Amino acid sequence: MRDVAERAGVGTITVSRALRNPDSVSPALRKRIYEAMRELNYIPNSIAGILSSSRSNAVVIIVPSIAESTFADTIQGITDVLDKHGMHILLGTSRYSLDIEEDLLRLMLSWRPAGAFITGTEHSPATSEMFRRMGTPVVEFWDISDKPIDMSVGFSHFQIGEEITHHLVEQGARRIAFVRGNYESGDRAGTREKGYRKALQDRGIDFALTLAPAQGPIGIAGGAEAMRRILRDHPEVDAVVFGSDYPAAGALFECQRQGISVPGQIKLAGIGDYDIASQLYPSLTTVQMPRYEVGKRAANLMMERISGADVTGSVVVLDTPLIVRESTGAGSLAPVIPAG
Amino acid sequence: MRDVAERAGVGTITVSRALRNPDSVSPALRKRIYEAMRELNYIPNSIAGILSSSRSNAVVIIVPSIAESTFADTIQGITDVLDKHGMHILLGTSRYSLDIEEDLLRLMLSWRPAGAFITGTEHSPATSEMFRRMGTPVVEFWDISDKPIDMSVGFSHFQIGEEITHHLVEQGARRIAFVRGNYESGDRAGTREKGYRKALQDRGIDFALTLAPAQGPIGIAGGAEAMRRILRDHPEVDAVVFGSDYPAAGALFECQRQGISVPGQIKLAGIGDYDIASQLYPSLTTVQMPRYEVGKRAANLMMERISGADVTGSVVVLDTPLIVRESTGAGSLAPVIPAG
Repeated sequence: MRDVAERAGVGTITVSRALRNPDSVSPALRKRIYEAMRELNYIPNSIAGILSSSRSNAVVIIVPSIAESTFADTIQGITDVLDKHGMHILLGTSRYSLDIEEDLLRLMLSWRPAGAFITGTEHSPATSEMFRRMGTPVVEFWDISDKPIDMSVGFSHFQIGEEITHHLVEQGARRIAFVRGNYESGDRAGTREKGYRKALQDRGIDFALTLAPAQGPIGIAGGAEAMRRILRDHPEVDAVVFGSDYPAAGALFECQRQGISVPGQIKLAGIGDYDIASQLYPSLTTVQMPRYEVGKRAANLMMERISGADVTGSVVVLDTPLIVRESTGAGSLAPVIPAG
Repeated sequence: MRDVAERAGVGTITVSRALRNPDSVSPALRKRIYEAMRELNYIPNSIAGILSSSRSNAVVIIVPSIAESTFADTIQGITDVLDKHGMHILLGTSRYSLDIEEDLLRLMLSWRPAGAFITGTEHSPATSEMFRRMGTPVVEFWDISDKPIDMSVGFSHFQIGEEITHHLVEQGARRIAFVRGNYESGDRAGTREKGYRKALQDRGIDFALTLAPAQGPIGIAGGAEAMRRILRDHPEVDAVVFGSDYPAAGALFECQRQGISVPGQIKLAGIGDYDIASQLYPSLTTVQMPRYEVGKRAANLMMERISGADVTGSVVVLDTPLIVRESTGAGSLAPVIPAG
């Protein structure tokens, strides 16, 4: 470290500060220090740092899965903020199981992390207890909690389900089905379904139909399969809400394959406002989930907390605007689509 | 640890072994030890373990990005293997920059990782040097290397571009365009384009046209935009290859919007065989990229190496089969798709 400091023309304390918190030095100085590190092939020793401070500069992130783009956007949001502060990421995937979440966390806490990000507000008692005992800043994200372990950044899945259903009723739909994934724990799809049922009840509509064909999340193929079942077994259905835009897209492709007009014969809606929603033909009505923003806000709260600000108990609730597009629109769309 | 051992009815050495390598004890015993840890709220101390062994049980993974599903599948493949061995993951994203990759790696090596996974075979000289000096097992993945730093698991992006172009020529296309992202480094799209140009040359076809509208990867919207430009400025084009299935899907939606028949008027092909490819109407011809398999094989190599097997210099080349579907087929598709 002394060599790096000498070559960069600064003191060792400045180098150590630049490594711990890159934003605490000017960009020009940071560049000089990093260049000196590169030239000397210097590798800092985090382990020694932890022993002297009892905390590392790693933070834990636990998500149910990374193979779907759902949580990848949130991880990217967290990463984009933490990178600027020189924090490292310990990543774990709980596979939608509270037991795995608990085991993962127990092992990951052995790194003496500076903080932890954890998906949802439903955890095993031991998980919550571990967080409390460690005194580590914790941000629960994706769901809203009245009583967060520490801090929470999320949005209302109930409201999402409610809002999209109200919209379909306003567009004239009366026999609306809901297609969702199937979860043992962290059941956000179930919360959205409750919102859907509440909206139907508020509108005095008796018809309700839920399909949950998949174990875990439902993808494009699962959406197509559910659509085939609805068209075959429930021809009275005039609109379908999907737990995510991807199964909604799969359902749209299935309608195209069978020559069923959307929104003419059946209205389709998704949830999430992923890239695909605006691009489909017809484009997809959906509700925005601020996936990246959740990660960014969660990481900002974490960094404020670590730097000593009094943000304990903070609960940030983000908006989930309804995005109305062609798939639930009343009129017919201009060009007929030929294939073949 | 003594309390855990006592409650589980085993020796402390067995507990320590179960933590270091969960697969080294029977599932029943592992369950008993984990339950004892849960009941006693025991948190192991990795830091102490590192000091005594000079290596931690963390491995580094560096990918260009996690916000696209591309690398998320590979990370999931690595995770699924490493979890069984009780290894932890330090995740970094290089944003397609070799400089960021180098800086990230330098900081992450400070954790004394047991190994590192790194995307591609193109690195800064200092990055390669760091790996050599640290003596850490390294797996380069996604590209093929004749001379890997240590081990390599990938597939041929050149062959992918070549094969899909040959297929289009065989289907009767003569004016084939190639649409791709735009990268400063780790330019796999550029390698696929070289394969495309080689195939055209081998077939004696003069016409070649490349569009690279995006900075970084090109998504669904980028594909739609490129398609609009092709239909407007290059009406002679009779087939388009996209660097990924997602832009190809965007292009298909744009054709539907404009009433252009696929594959009747224009043939479209993707690369990757993502979920969406088989579900689109018409379904999409593409080349399979074994994203998850790359991660799994890379992690298996890593664990063999860590447990002492002589696999240094291993180069695993995975197959990338051509998947022929409707979007490049000759005949017309049965049901016309009405929208509206």
